[in-house]
Amino acid sequence: MENFVEILCAGNELLIGKISNTNAQWLAKRITTLGLKVRRVTVVGDDVGEIAAVLKESLEREPRFVITTGGLGPTFDDKTLEGVAKALNCELDKNDEALKMIEERYERYVAEGRMERVELTPHRLKMAKLPKGAKPLFNPVGTAPGVLAESGETRLIMLPGVPQEMKAIFDESVAPLIREVAGNLTFYEASIDVRGVPESELAPIIEQVMHDNPYVYVKSHPKVSERVSHLELHLSTTSADGKLARQHVGRALIQISELIQQKGGKTEPIEAGD
Amino acid sequence: MENFVEILCAGNELLIGKISNTNAQWLAKRITTLGLKVRRVTVVGDDVGEIAAVLKESLEREPRFVITTGGLGPTFDDKTLEGVAKALNCELDKNDEALKMIEERYERYVAEGRMERVELTPHRLKMAKLPKGAKPLFNPVGTAPGVLAESGETRLIMLPGVPQEMKAIFDESVAPLIREVAGNLTFYEASIDVRGVPESELAPIIEQVMHDNPYVYVKSHPKVSERVSHLELHLSTTSADGKLARQHVGRALIQISELIQQKGGKTEPIEAGD
Repeated sequence: MENFVEILCAGNELLIGKISNTNAQWLAKRITTLGLKVRRVTVVGDDVGEIAAVLKESLEREPRFVITTGGLGPTFDDKTLEGVAKALNCELDKNDEALKMIEERYERYVAEGRMERVELTPHRLKMAKLPKGAKPLFNPVGTAPGVLAESGETRLIMLPGVPQEMKAIFDESVAPLIREVAGNLTFYEASIDVRGVPESELAPIIEQVMHDNPYVYVKSHPKVSERVSHLELHLSTTSADGKLARQHVGRALIQISELIQQKGGKTEPIEAGD
Repeated sequence: MENFVEILCAGNELLIGKISNTNAQWLAKRITTLGLKVRRVTVVGDDVGEIAAVLKESLEREPRFVITTGGLGPTFDDKTLEGVAKALNCELDKNDEALKMIEERYERYVAEGRMERVELTPHRLKMAKLPKGAKPLFNPVGTAPGVLAESGETRLIMLPGVPQEMKAIFDESVAPLIREVAGNLTFYEASIDVRGVPESELAPIIEQVMHDNPYVYVKSHPKVSERVSHLELHLSTTSADGKLARQHVGRALIQISELIQQKGGKTEPIEAGD
């Protein structure tokens, strides 16, 4: 079984371009840093059929994890768990543990004066209905719990769409599961800024450096500038040995910088976080 | 044939979370505003097999347009056209029109002093190899032309990943094709800020308003705040009559605001662009 992850984001707001899919970027970065590879990200609307279809296709590729965002809340268009149940061909069932989490959250809202009393309306109960056999994941920030389900050797993890809630559940409950699979794999990356050499002249240099440094992946990202060719080169590797990873990338960086300078180009390291 | 669009973004940088998929958001917003519906966005790496697989799955759903971003440049990992050729089961062929566009672009670089002379290296020629029968789309900003191919009633449009180039080709060559299909459909939207009513209490209000206003779609977007329930409600509709669209949304806005105020909540319009 290959160690890869697929991400599914549900939300009409993503399909009309109302918001940028920052959840997918955050998850992709975290998963990559934890040592696993994200192979596909899919975005669909708030539609049970679409969500179920994408999940079924995804499960056929046998990823270790499918992580979904969005569609866990109390409104009619929060349809992710219905989609999961359809994909797994099971029922949605009231889950006592999830119900307890939701009740406790509303009790806290009452204590904080945000709500007069806890009343478990059908819309609130909806959040406690999980696919049969699934487990709730504690949401330290909001109401709807995350959900963990299994299908074959794939774990399906459903997270809310509100970024703070998604991140909090990921860090608390999902990162440990990924670490367990990834072992001590780590991802190491570095970037340099390149001016004065067009991408088409860099192409054969990149090929040579990747040939000579088989563990390192090099990718060029052109930047549009008026009169000078300007690119970012991104070098990355994944290794069980952090020191070796840094060495591999460092060696490739030196080689590629020299080759670029021989072509008359200028290189400059880019600090992480730029 | 349903009038929907699918978007495919190719790029390892998206799968490692190095950058956010702003291209997908920009395209989704423009396509929605032009009156068509985006049904799915898929992100895969720089891999011929993955790109071809997603395209084939997409073509089976028979969208009017599949729009891809990324992977048109001169480097070895620019693999989109290879993926398209594989999906359409055809060859990549030198396209004279594309070659002319690329030559003219390099001639301009020479005139601007960015390059000493035009030399059509294999890496540069690569950008002129299009799937058989496809047409290049003029790139007013960079080197790699966009590409238009057809499969059944679906048009495949391949755009570069550099945002300025992607946007320039879209506006010049793609928007007119979409307008042709969408006719005079327009998308109208409005948002209100809601405080003091939790999402689970809004849920039945949203259902009632959508029931009474069948053309209007209402979606709640929770915002995390410390002590007060805080949400954005987004109302939208698509109609061939712009005035009617505004009326439909306006009527739903008035109803939903009144119902929220009856629950003790506060509403406030959100200006477009917030």
